[in-house]
Amino acid sequence: MAGAGVIGLGVAWRARLRGLAVTVVDPEPGSGASWTAAGMLAPVTELHYGEGPLLALNSASALRYPAFVDELEQSSGCEVGYLRCGTLVAAWDAADMAGLTDIHGFARSLGLETELLSRRELRARVPASASGLAGALSAPSDHQVDSRLLHSALLRACVAEGVTMVHTAAYQWLLRGDRVVGLRLADGTDLQAPVVVLACGAWSARIGGLPPEAVPAVRPVKGQTLRMRTVGPPLLTCVLRGSVRGCPVYLVPRADGRIVVGASSEEVGFDLRPRAGAVYELLRDAQALVPGLGEAELEEISTSLRPASPDNAPLIGPSRVPGLVLATGHYRNGVLLTPVTADAIAGLLADGTLPDEVAPFSPTRFDQATAFPQATAFPQATAFPQAATFTQAAIEEDVG
Amino acid sequence: MAGAGVIGLGVAWRARLRGLAVTVVDPEPGSGASWTAAGMLAPVTELHYGEGPLLALNSASALRYPAFVDELEQSSGCEVGYLRCGTLVAAWDAADMAGLTDIHGFARSLGLETELLSRRELRARVPASASGLAGALSAPSDHQVDSRLLHSALLRACVAEGVTMVHTAAYQWLLRGDRVVGLRLADGTDLQAPVVVLACGAWSARIGGLPPEAVPAVRPVKGQTLRMRTVGPPLLTCVLRGSVRGCPVYLVPRADGRIVVGASSEEVGFDLRPRAGAVYELLRDAQALVPGLGEAELEEISTSLRPASPDNAPLIGPSRVPGLVLATGHYRNGVLLTPVTADAIAGLLADGTLPDEVAPFSPTRFDQATAFPQATAFPQATAFPQAATFTQAAIEEDVG
Repeated sequence: MAGAGVIGLGVAWRARLRGLAVTVVDPEPGSGASWTAAGMLAPVTELHYGEGPLLALNSASALRYPAFVDELEQSSGCEVGYLRCGTLVAAWDAADMAGLTDIHGFARSLGLETELLSRRELRARVPASASGLAGALSAPSDHQVDSRLLHSALLRACVAEGVTMVHTAAYQWLLRGDRVVGLRLADGTDLQAPVVVLACGAWSARIGGLPPEAVPAVRPVKGQTLRMRTVGPPLLTCVLRGSVRGCPVYLVPRADGRIVVGASSEEVGFDLRPRAGAVYELLRDAQALVPGLGEAELEEISTSLRPASPDNAPLIGPSRVPGLVLATGHYRNGVLLTPVTADAIAGLLADGTLPDEVAPFSPTRFDQATAFPQATAFPQATAFPQAATFTQAAIEEDVG
Repeated sequence: MAGAGVIGLGVAWRARLRGLAVTVVDPEPGSGASWTAAGMLAPVTELHYGEGPLLALNSASALRYPAFVDELEQSSGCEVGYLRCGTLVAAWDAADMAGLTDIHGFARSLGLETELLSRRELRARVPASASGLAGALSAPSDHQVDSRLLHSALLRACVAEGVTMVHTAAYQWLLRGDRVVGLRLADGTDLQAPVVVLACGAWSARIGGLPPEAVPAVRPVKGQTLRMRTVGPPLLTCVLRGSVRGCPVYLVPRADGRIVVGASSEEVGFDLRPRAGAVYELLRDAQALVPGLGEAELEEISTSLRPASPDNAPLIGPSRVPGLVLATGHYRNGVLLTPVTADAIAGLLADGTLPDEVAPFSPTRFDQATAFPQATAFPQATAFPQAATFTQAAIEEDVG
């Protein structure tokens, strides 16, 4: 396993529960997008026209969340702040309300539960919201989890179950012929493994040694979030998001009085510097929705890189390079998609099969038709019951 | 000496150069307003109607700066980033320009060097300034120093000259009759001294044990500053300040490409939490003056408490309590007033006299006429050639 964010650790934990030997490689577990994420579990309010297959996957993962959290909290002994709080999308003005009404119709046509709220109903639900907002769309099944608590629970669960953690960066793929057989680490160590799962998020294309055509189609999209703290009664009891004069912003209230505000979206490569203009816009738009936030303590500014793919959907499953499995490219939905990704990849490693729900997200969908001979990571569809390996989230040890 | 900000250390250093034995008490030297300050040396552009005596003191200290810096850099071996860069005050609109024209007349009537710049002249001097600004007032003698470098140079100079540093908080005044004879520290230690100089900034009224009428009239005024970093050619080569829709903001460009943006001004007691609304307003107004700042890296948000007095001017000299000398209440001008305060107090401790220029800033000006019997810290106008003491910036050791 390469990568110890929520995806890498989720896969490692579930693979270990299936009886596989797992090694996870990451110099600093949870320092990437998992740390910055607000943890919205929002299949409905992250719905975009034309992304129907992603909606199905997001919804499937949201449905798995309660059981996943139960099991994880038991295994780790840690709470993860899973709050079934629902989400409201506020309308900035009448034109915005018309857009939300369209989304409402679209969501209903897909069988999703949404409701339109008048200006008055919005104020009744969220008294701290700005008085001029035009109304809202309610998505009662879009919830939240505390992504930092989720990550530390996964780390504990992995260690408790016997996953081996290696705190070194993955430097280069080890190849034998056209097959990935392990990883060379930054300290010169070689780890051999029958299968390596790549879950390095935005850095997934940065491990050297693959032929150019085989490098995963994942790029970094910079995101900044703010963490604020209020005193006294909570300003918010549900997730509140909206588009303020066209700029999207969300406010995610934690149980402890903190509010996570996000998020910028910047195509600037591997640049992790907090940008003054992005912080400004988040503060401006957050206060436009909830004016009282101006009095909150600004506790933290976090920046990370989301792993985006050409169609905004993840890369889950075998690559065209034998021995290399991908669990990356989750873009804005990594926290939400952790359960479904973890179970799918663990199943692939244990049984050699992938569930239908992840079929549309095969990494090979971006391959040029002629780039690779037909081959899969599991040419004989054989399971590896005693060994699955990961890199920079997890390298499965070679137990043969 | 109590207090190891720039004022406390400045006094300690100068007193030591006069041959006095000096002990400085501070749990965390330089963690207060000295750390957050932008370091503007701005007698002209900090000029307010009705504060003529303060202008004279500010100007006197600005004149001392070059020699003070030369001596300090030699003594410490550290540069302090004293830049004779001048200051422009931008006019947000025509009404603001009319206000600056009034200030220009007032400044000229006081013999200060100022110049009015047209919209075109401002753009020529500061190409990065916003195109809509109405003009500017130029104050070519308002400069800057890097307050953090100044503080560390003072610390080095003090140590080099033999000042004793005690890293503990001052807890309570030691009194014998009505006379201060030393300090009790937070760890229970008692330090005796013939004279104690109080230079604890906003915390100056928090050391226990004085009669209520003798507690210095100093209160905390919260200020927040931002530190940004730009790459490439500098956006600014002089200090740029202005009042954006009535909100004052200043941008102080350091030689290393950093820009310090300040400052909020909040009367909220001893509250050091960064407030989201204040950060928002600084980012908003800084970008209103220099739009390119939106692309800068937001490197740091700092909060500290300025020591304000009832008339915004400092408290420099003997208090009515024998043995207690004040060097506090410098409010927005602590960095600027360091040389004149340090020399005045060192002179008082060494010779028993204060220069005329600080006479208007006697701490006793706030005393109720009947509160104290006539007494001074130096009843016989005797000098203490071998001993001056400070508290929580400096306690002079009792060498008797």
